[in-house]
Formats: sequence, structure tokens, C-alpha cells
Amino acid sequence: MAGSVYGNIFKISTWGESHGKALGVVIDGCPSGINICEEEIQKDLDRRKPGTSKYTTQRNESDKVEIMSGVFEGKTTGTPISLIIYNTDQRSKDYSNILNVYRPGHADFGYDSKYGFRDYRGGGRSSGRETAARVAAGAIAKKMLSLLNIDITAYTYSIGNIKININNFNKEEILNNSLSMPDVSAAESAKLLLNETMSKNDSLGGVIQCEITGLKSGIGEPVFDKLDAAIAKSILSIGAVKGIEFGLGFKAAEVNGSFNNDEMYFNDDGKVVKYTNNSGGILGGISDGFPIIFRAAVKPTPSISKTQKTVTKSGENTEIQIKGRHDPIIVSRAVVVVEAMAAVTIADFILMNMCSRIDNVIKFYK
Amino acid sequence: MAGSVYGNIFKISTWGESHGKALGVVIDGCPSGINICEEEIQKDLDRRKPGTSKYTTQRNESDKVEIMSGVFEGKTTGTPISLIIYNTDQRSKDYSNILNVYRPGHADFGYDSKYGFRDYRGGGRSSGRETAARVAAGAIAKKMLSLLNIDITAYTYSIGNIKININNFNKEEILNNSLSMPDVSAAESAKLLLNETMSKNDSLGGVIQCEITGLKSGIGEPVFDKLDAAIAKSILSIGAVKGIEFGLGFKAAEVNGSFNNDEMYFNDDGKVVKYTNNSGGILGGISDGFPIIFRAAVKPTPSISKTQKTVTKSGENTEIQIKGRHDPIIVSRAVVVVEAMAAVTIADFILMNMCSRIDNVIKFYK
Amino acid sequence: MAGSVYGNIFKISTWGESHGKALGVVIDGCPSGINICEEEIQKDLDRRKPGTSKYTTQRNESDKVEIMSGVFEGKTTGTPISLIIYNTDQRSKDYSNILNVYRPGHADFGYDSKYGFRDYRGGGRSSGRETAARVAAGAIAKKMLSLLNIDITAYTYSIGNIKININNFNKEEILNNSLSMPDVSAAESAKLLLNETMSKNDSLGGVIQCEITGLKSGIGEPVFDKLDAAIAKSILSIGAVKGIEFGLGFKAAEVNGSFNNDEMYFNDDGKVVKYTNNSGGILGGISDGFPIIFRAAVKPTPSISKTQKTVTKSGENTEIQIKGRHDPIIVSRAVVVVEAMAAVTIADFILMNMCSRIDNVIKFYK
Amino acid sequence: MAGSVYGNIFKISTWGESHGKALGVVIDGCPSGINICEEEIQKDLDRRKPGTSKYTTQRNESDKVEIMSGVFEGKTTGTPISLIIYNTDQRSKDYSNILNVYRPGHADFGYDSKYGFRDYRGGGRSSGRETAARVAAGAIAKKMLSLLNIDITAYTYSIGNIKININNFNKEEILNNSLSMPDVSAAESAKLLLNETMSKNDSLGGVIQCEITGLKSGIGEPVFDKLDAAIAKSILSIGAVKGIEFGLGFKAAEVNGSFNNDEMYFNDDGKVVKYTNNSGGILGGISDGFPIIFRAAVKPTPSISKTQKTVTKSGENTEIQIKGRHDPIIVSRAVVVVEAMAAVTIADFILMNMCSRIDNVIKFYK
Repeated sequence: MAGSVYGNIFKISTWGESHGKALGVVIDGCPSGINICEEEIQKDLDRRKPGTSKYTTQRNESDKVEIMSGVFEGKTTGTPISLIIYNTDQRSKDYSNILNVYRPGHADFGYDSKYGFRDYRGGGRSSGRETAARVAAGAIAKKMLSLLNIDITAYTYSIGNIKININNFNKEEILNNSLSMPDVSAAESAKLLLNETMSKNDSLGGVIQCEITGLKSGIGEPVFDKLDAAIAKSILSIGAVKGIEFGLGFKAAEVNGSFNNDEMYFNDDGKVVKYTNNSGGILGGISDGFPIIFRAAVKPTPSISKTQKTVTKSGENTEIQIKGRHDPIIVSRAVVVVEAMAAVTIADFILMNMCSRIDNVIKFYK
Repeated sequence: MAGSVYGNIFKISTWGESHGKALGVVIDGCPSGINICEEEIQKDLDRRKPGTSKYTTQRNESDKVEIMSGVFEGKTTGTPISLIIYNTDQRSKDYSNILNVYRPGHADFGYDSKYGFRDYRGGGRSSGRETAARVAAGAIAKKMLSLLNIDITAYTYSIGNIKININNFNKEEILNNSLSMPDVSAAESAKLLLNETMSKNDSLGGVIQCEITGLKSGIGEPVFDKLDAAIAKSILSIGAVKGIEFGLGFKAAEVNGSFNNDEMYFNDDGKVVKYTNNSGGILGGISDGFPIIFRAAVKPTPSISKTQKTVTKSGENTEIQIKGRHDPIIVSRAVVVVEAMAAVTIADFILMNMCSRIDNVIKFYK
Repeated sequence: MAGSVYGNIFKISTWGESHGKALGVVIDGCPSGINICEEEIQKDLDRRKPGTSKYTTQRNESDKVEIMSGVFEGKTTGTPISLIIYNTDQRSKDYSNILNVYRPGHADFGYDSKYGFRDYRGGGRSSGRETAARVAAGAIAKKMLSLLNIDITAYTYSIGNIKININNFNKEEILNNSLSMPDVSAAESAKLLLNETMSKNDSLGGVIQCEITGLKSGIGEPVFDKLDAAIAKSILSIGAVKGIEFGLGFKAAEVNGSFNNDEMYFNDDGKVVKYTNNSGGILGGISDGFPIIFRAAVKPTPSISKTQKTVTKSGENTEIQIKGRHDPIIVSRAVVVVEAMAAVTIADFILMNMCSRIDNVIKFYK
Repeated sequence: MAGSVYGNIFKISTWGESHGKALGVVIDGCPSGINICEEEIQKDLDRRKPGTSKYTTQRNESDKVEIMSGVFEGKTTGTPISLIIYNTDQRSKDYSNILNVYRPGHADFGYDSKYGFRDYRGGGRSSGRETAARVAAGAIAKKMLSLLNIDITAYTYSIGNIKININNFNKEEILNNSLSMPDVSAAESAKLLLNETMSKNDSLGGVIQCEITGLKSGIGEPVFDKLDAAIAKSILSIGAVKGIEFGLGFKAAEVNGSFNNDEMYFNDDGKVVKYTNNSGGILGGISDGFPIIFRAAVKPTPSISKTQKTVTKSGENTEIQIKGRHDPIIVSRAVVVVEAMAAVTIADFILMNMCSRIDNVIKFYK
């Protein structure tokens, strides 16, 4: 049911296929009065765009964004913001061979089961290319959050079995190296591993960590719309993500309550602070004023040129070697997508939270 | 914004506090004609109810469910089904000492930040007691799914560092032992560990695994309403859950694509099958016809009687020892809650999927 | 889908059948900190309850409301408010004769077409009794609006062909006379007409007018969620309503633009005012700061004891005389239902509007 | 909150301003497998487009629609359908004079109250031009409905005080004459009236009637999502509509129940039929299998060149003569918009209804 619409107040509707004319998003419910221009959105799109290193697909897309509505004289008007990104380097012929074949690790078989047929060109709607529209929407959400001094930063936490060393953490490296890995030495090791993997016609996955700072306590809705639940949905909705954990995450399941609980005290500024942040900034689904920390597991790119066994739509067993232009790893390109989905979710929840107390409603209404 | 409503077509609204008069749920959008009675719902509530072993709170609640509407002559009518569970063993005095104190690991501070004050008795709305209403709704969703031959089974996968051994797997033990652990020997070890933990006034967490079998391929909606994304939200909305992973999960981030991809073939019955199920039954957000497998990390109960540092609402640093009747572990009681949330989500997505193809619409409309 | 849930932020879920155990509503998204008690809700329920005059059904229901959750120490907590009204005077035997017969003017045939069968006792879910839950929810919405100095007043505008004379308008009469008609003399004529109608075993309808004062300009959402569109839906969702018009309404279709347009000027207080209010307080779906005025057409009660031709479920032509306890007119009892639905809608839209400008978001967030 | 999104399963998101780059709509939730091409959509857009007679604005827009996504090899894929219509004849200079002035009868003042400022060019988002996107979406909904043999036909029922005579009804005239009036002689009288009105620099409104045939009984959801309530919202969301009535409508408020009730019988084919259709095809919010009939009151165009008193944003009283290219009447152009909104609503409700009975769910699932 309308699976391409996301959000409650800050609501986004995305559209477009890998090899269609264009991709886009309509953002409805963005507050009026936010200064925004195409360049700001483009900056995030450039972080996601293909062809920037040898570790990404060689498809050549400039991913140029155009604002079609909702911005007047440089400011959001409060009405729908439509963003469009034309496709320019579709080579649909590359895909004619998968018309009848279901690629392992892809949604091909599921889409055919669901819809009876599919736009097979580059995966159609199920392609990772769909995330360009998310990134465009996320850039606007981030702009709104920046006005509230909220920052969202994601980065590559691990590739294969190579993790960053927290002692080497260097935030600038996120935008500096082609793997978005904030640890130069881990990034170098990861590149060697990727080179080796590529030489075997194979692919790799990894983990993305995301930190949200500046979010005040009290954001999140009780019971079903817990902030972590909503973030989890938004992140798992990114094609290749297979798991998420907050704070201590799966390790919390192994320790004692006395260790996992974050004890609190008033600091010298009279602010409530915690000795630890095992909760990852969310308790009972509500932000506790500490940084929100989560990690997402990204599977290895399913498109590999190694031979794989599979089946055809017409009922035969077969083998496939996936040609075309594919990423040996999508973790680094997914970093900005994770930021985007977190940003849209946080923006939505901040707007929702405005209605939580009658004294705010009265103050606002006057 | 209305965080206590969940679902799109099969929609549930829960209400009630730990120490209020009652808890309940209204289910709107359940198809007509399903045979349902209070006994069937009670069965699941009994799996969650407190006081059944020494590893659960000694609060004495029968958690008796009553159908208030939506069922006529034993069958659902298609209109809202209202279920109510009266509280009978509230002892609110136990909680007067936390009126002014924020318990570590709890939502107390967040609720006060959000709403300005809170129903502090037993955690009010943020109490795990809220999940009784989910279980009641889940029982009806499961009944609907059983008519489609879909089964949902969750169990304790690990407690602390003690995991079940898959070679000892015994499904009957899920309902047999007080820890819902389908491995007798692991359950015994876990009990010893729990006894020791309790003697130290501490608590433990664990991991719940859930398997959904019988779901056909093609269920799930593209992009934001991917089936795994929706399940993730539903499971992370359970208070103590800090992480979720599907299929290989976080391990998928460490392996090669050629390993992670599930190769396919036609079996002798002409059915598409996979050599492995690393995807956990979902690809691109759409079910692939294989069992859906996920694991949820449950944190240790935050209410412990060990002394902890914390702060008061009125601005002082303080210490707290949480008395009252608390579970040393909530994993086993959460097992049926996980089943319930998965069931409500799957029921909702099956109904949504009915509209995916025009030929089905035409056939149905005639 | 899930047709018993209404609203976006201020969201209500109603449940219950005419001859079930009880009726109720869950209100999710009501801001915290509003003082509310059962007596305030009861006041509105008493205006709707049956048996208060000879012009209403003689069913004897006290319609006693009980707050089950969401209110702590007299104030809303921000979490779901559950309200319950037990049925006490069901006489289901009265209805056994319609088990197999479709009553003209009722939803019987439609419900059977949709669901395959129906709870036929007193119309089940399609009974006007369902509106008790709306009135209970409306009382809480009105309480919230009263804190913003917004008043909602509905009254009987006409019964059959007898209209109130605006020169005789007396607001106190709305609560004074049994027809809720703010014109003593029109009320007397209407009673005579009703007596005559009842003597012929027939029924009558009428028009309800509603005025919303104190609403500031700028409330309403563009395009599909126009304020008048939302009010229209909420009012047409009341069983017997067959039409609605705002301001000049259908007369606007007959006049010139120069007459219909409301010219504006600044009054001595520097406030924008209009010479006329033909718009009924809404332009382009957004409130213009003037009173919102609308009228709803209520059809005559379909349950009459006059003989009518109809059909049976089992396929025969037949005749029916509807016995039981029925209102000869439902207009006066529907007055408070109209107020309730308008109140819930306005409350919801005021909350939604809080997010419209970034400067408000920033101010609020600090 | 996201007021530009409409529908539950068949969900549309529109965007664009009168003088922006383009207008568009994203349709999410349309079933897969429907044959659709741009020409079919264009046909309806041509009925709405300006400049086709002297009774419409002379703005010269071809309103050429382009399908951007969601259609593959001529069939809908089940994923979002994005439609775009570029603006070509904006003359924004025409509007610079209203930058600071609030036009009577327009949303200018409300938008400024709500958002702090507005895109004043041609009314921006509040312009009637926004309805082009609705018509495009409606064309696809109509295509879906045509496959179920459901027809939606709207027409001009009256202009000013000139009504069609039902004895002269000629359906072909709807597309034949410039006023979409299915009565040649009434159309001639209306043209004379319009000529006279235009010569006085004034405008006129009228009533649109809409008939939906072929809809089976049982469509509509109980309580808040009654079919008539949903249609009412969809039609009142069209800018200039000030009222709606179903079947007898406001006249039902004046007659007796015995007159208003539609008696039923089995016809020779064993089908349930009604002697009358005073209900307008909907009872208790559920279709009764008879044609759905409703009428919408359209106000006179507020943009007139006659001098009107009004106020400026900067706080002065002033006068305005609205120049530019305006329709002396918008009724005829709104006819296809009414059809579109009805079509989208009916399509959505048919899809929702698929889930109403468990036997259908079981049958479908197999």
C-alpha cells in the first residue's frame, strides 16, 4: 500500500526506476521559511553518486538535482517540494539478459511473485538507484535540523572483517577517502581487501555507524512510534541493510543490568548527564538527550560476475554471471543514505513532538 | 502523534497503564468471518502473564481478557474488536518513592522531558505491562494467519552468554520450560546463571529468535514499507529491544557476496527453492517464499535492587535501589510479544498485498 | 481502512455495537496537561442520551462514561485516553425479526454485501448509538479548544419545513428545549409538526447549523486537507447526514462573484475584518479568522412503523413495520454529535498547524 | 501536515504552483498490469485546459502530460507513477501588483497567516491550476475503474439560476458544448447570462452533478470512512466548492421518512432493486448497488475586474481590480476535476474493500 511514501508530518514520496527517465521525490509538510538551494542538495547527492572511485559502479551519472516546486525566492513555502534527477546514462541493453532470469540476492523473484512482471532494467524500482531520491529529501531534512543545531554523521564502521580503530578516529576522513572510513589505516587495509575481492569477481559488505548529536531529550512517541523503532524501519528500508542495533545493541543481551544501565548525575552546568551511553541515546523510545548511536549491517553487493546457480521465469534451472556496471561494495555510497533516512525521521519526530504538551499548544496558538 | 496506533489495514490501538484500571486494544480492519473466542486469546496472554516462575515478577495478575465488541455469534464482524484486561494487583504505593527520581535504564526522564510530568506508578504507559494488549491483538492476527497456514514461532535463543545449541533444538520446550528455551540443557545452564544473577540483585538480557513459516513469496511493499523494515519497527517498538537482524544479519556484513547470496533451483515439485536462506526469507523487502528468520536483542531488565546513581526531578544527585516486584529477565515473557508483533505485521501486509495486481482486483470484484 | 479511526495527530478509535456489552473510544495524541474529569464528558453525553423527551427513543440508557486510562491526578498524560460506556438497556429480542430482513433506509443490505453477515441487533455497528463514543471524544477536544478560547456551538436550524427565524435567535434555548432549537416559537411549531408525524407512524429530518468562533486565521492545510473538506468528511460520517454547505453554500452557486466575495478592511483595532462572511470563515481551505459556519442536512429517521416494501436475505420480497424504540427525529440528538466531530477536527488541525513555519519550530525547540 | 497527499491504498501526492516550472502527481499503490498511455491521460487534461472557449481564461497552456515512472512496456508496474506537466505560459509580471494585496475571496490572507509569506504569482499553490495534477491522477483511476465496468460522469447541472431540464438531458452535450451542460437550451441561456455577467466585469458559479454507475453494493467503510464522507472530503478539497449533497440531499431534511426511504424488491433477474434512489446510492456509508448521485456547489470565480475593497499585507485599506487572465466561470472546467476526485476515491475504496472478508482473503492467498 503505497510503499513509497514515508513520514507523518514531514512526508516524502519517492518515485523512479534505475533505467526510467528520471527519479524524484515530493516532500510534503516541510515547514515554510527554510532557506534552501539546489547546491546544498547537490552536495549530498555527490557523496552518493556513482563513478567517483574504482570501488563504485562506473555508471556515469551526474545526478543533477532540480527543484521543481515549493521553494520561492530561496525559501521553502510550506507546500510540496518536488525534486527531480534525470537519468542520463541508462544502458538498458546491459540487462536484457536478466529479463527471464532471477538474480540471486536480488528482489527479482519477489517482484514477479507480487506484481506478475517487473521492469527488469537494472532492477527497476528495486535498484539502489532509488536511494538518490532519499538523499535529496534528506538534504532538506538536514538543513532543517541544522537550524536546531542537530547534526547527523554516518560513516563506514567496518568492511568485511576490518573495523575502524576508535583511537584512530578522524572525522574528516569520512569525506576524504573513497570508503568514507574515518580511520586512514583501516581504510587502507579495506582497500587491499576490496582489491583482492574484486579480483575474484566477488563483493563485500560492512557496517555503517551513525551518530546524531544535539537532539534534546523528550523526542519520540510512546509504544509503537518509539524513536528507535522508527529509525530502525527507516534504515532497514534501505535495500541492502540486514540488521540494526542501538548503543550496546546485541552486546546488551549479554551483560548485566547494572552494567547496561546508564547512571545519571547533574553536571556543573546543572544539566542531566550520564556516565555511559549504552542506551545509544534512546530509552523507552524517547531520546534521553545523549547522542543517538546506531549501527547498520550492510550485506555484500548481490550483483557479482562470479557464476551462480539460479532459475528462470519460464521454469528452467540455469546459471548466471552478472555483467553490467556494479559496485564491489555499497557501504560507502550508503553512508549518506543512512544519514538521509535518519534525518527525515528525526525531522518528522521533532515536528510531531511540538504537540505533546498543552502549554506549548497554548503558547504557540497565541 | 498518536504513537499507540499501529498498522495500515489491520490496525491496532492500545491503551492503559501499569497501575491504571485496565489495559486494552481496539483492532480495526480485521476481516469478517474469523471464528474467535476469549479462550484462544487467553492462551497467549497466559504465556506472557507474570508470576509463573521465580524468573518473573511476583505481581499476581490473571490477565483475563474480555471481548467487548466486534465478535458476533463467535465470528468477527469486520468492525472494531475491543479487548479489555482489567488490572487487579496494582500496588501503587510501591512506587511512591520514584515519583521524584529517574530510574536508570528507564523512560522516566524522557517522559518528563516530553510531557512535563508522568504517571510514575510502575512506569505508567512505559511499563512492559503495556505489551499485554499487544499479545491480545497478536492472538487474533495469529488466528487469521493460521487459516492461511502461516505459523509464527519465537523462542529464547540466548540468555546472557548462554546460547541454544541447534543440535539440541526441541520445539516443545518453548512452552515447556520457564525460559521458553528450546534446548533443555541450555535452559538448565541459563537457570543457574539467573540464580546467581538474582543473588547479586542484578538482571540479565538475551536474544529472541523468531521463525515465520508458510508465507508465500511476494509479500512486502517496495521502498519504505519493506517487510523487514516493518517487522524491525514492530519489534524495536517492544520496550527492551535494542537490535534486530534478519537471516545472516550482522554476519552478512563480514562475508562475500558469493557466500551470502542464496542460489536457487527448481525442486522436484517444480517449486523455486534456495540452497541456503541467508536472506532470512526477505529480499528487497519482499518475501522470497522461504522462512522468515530474525533475532532481537533484549536488554537486561533495568529495574534492579542494586544501588545506582541517578538524579531527581527537583535537581539533586541521589542513589536508588529499585524495590517492588521485578523480573530478573524479561526475555522469556517477551517471546510471545515478539510473536504478536510479527503476527500483526504479517497480517497487515497480507491484506495490503491483495491490491497489488489488477487481475486479482478484477477477479475479486466480480 | 480500519474505518473506525479518525484524525491525524488528535486521533480517535471508536468501537462498540448497539446491543454489545459497551461502546468506547481511545483518544491518542491528546496533549498532556489538560484538566479533565468524567463529569465534563458526561455533560455532553447527557445531551445525546435517549429518553429525555417524547421525541427521542424510549430506550433507557444512562450512558455513564468511565475514564479507563490516560488521565493521572486529573490531568491528561499525553498517552491514550480510553473511555468506556456500558450498555444497560439492550433488548435484543426486539430485533430478531430483522435478522433476515433488510430495513429500507438502513445499512443492513450494504453490511451483508460487504461482510457476508452482520450483527443485526439494533443495527449493530451501523446504529446511531455508535455516536456516543464520538461525543465522549468530542468533549475532550472541546475542553482543549476552550483553553484556546475557541467555541463550537451547533443547534437545530430547521425541522421539516420549519426554520428558525434569525430575529428570534436565543442561544440559551439550545439547551433549554427538547429540540435544541434556538427559537421558542419555531420549536413550538416543530413540536406540533412532530406530534402529527408521529401519529402517522412517520418520521422527520432537519438541518443543523454549527458555528465555530475564536479560531484564528491560518488553520487548514493546502489542497486535499482543506479545513472545510476535513469538516465535511467528519460531518458526513455521521450516519444520517446527506449534505453539508459552508457560508452561503449552495446559494453561492447562484450569485455573482462581486456579491459572494467578502470585502475586507482594517478595523479600528488594526485587525483585518470582512464586511460579510459568505465564505463561512474558510477560504482556499484555510480559516480566515471569521466564524466558521456550516449547515448539515439530516435525513428523517429511517426506522418507522409504517408498512414498507423490502426484501429478505434469503431472497423473498416482503413487507416490514419497524417496531422497537425509535426516535421520530434524530436532529436534536445529533446536534451534540455535530459539535463533537467539528471539535475533534479543529483540535487536530490546530495541532497540525503548529509545524507550519520554521520560526515556530525553532522557538518551540529551544 | 502533508496536505497534498490523498488516499489510503491508491495514494496520490500532488505538487506545483501556478507559475512554477511544472505541476505533477505521484500515484503510489496503483495495481500492476493496467494498460495506460499518455494519450488517455491527455484526453481528460484537455477537458480541463484553459483557453478552449471565451468562458475560460485565455492563458495558453497545452497541459501536456509526461509519464516519468511506474509504467513499463505500456503497463503499470505497481510502483509509483510519476506524471509531470510543464508550465509554459506563466506571466508572473501580471501578479506583481498583488504581492502586497489580499484578494477578496482568495486564500491569500490565509496563506500569509499560516506560512508567514506566500508565492503570490497566480495564487501559487492555492491556484486552481493545481487541479491539473488531480485530473491526471483521476485519468488513471478511471482507467482502473473502467476495467470493473464502473463509469463516472459529471456535468454542469446549473449556472447561476439556470438549471438543466432533465427532460432535455443529452449526455453527448457534456463534451460538446463549452459549458459541459447536457441540455442544449439551458446551455444557450447560460451563455447569454455569462455574456451579460462578463460585460459587468463579474463572474458566476453553478452546480455540478456527478453520477457513478456500475458500483456494486458493499463498498465503503463503517463509521468515519463512510463512502459519502470520503467523497465529500475529496470534492470539498476542490478550491471553489462550498457544499455537497447526496441523493435527495438538503431536500431529505424536509420530507418524511416514509417518502425518503427507498423501498426494495427483487426484480425479474433476482437482483435487489429499489423503487427510488433518494439515498443517492449510499446507505450508512456503504454503497447499495444503485448509482451514486451527488451535487457540488461551485462558487463564482473570485477573481473579478470589478473594483473591490480590501487590505494590504503592510497594513493599509485599499481597493483592487483584478486584471490578468481569469475564468468568468470555473464550473465547466471543474467538471472533469470532480470526476477525477470521485474516481480516485472510488478506486481507493474498492481496493480497501478487498480485505473485508476472510473467505476472500483465503481465496486470494492461495
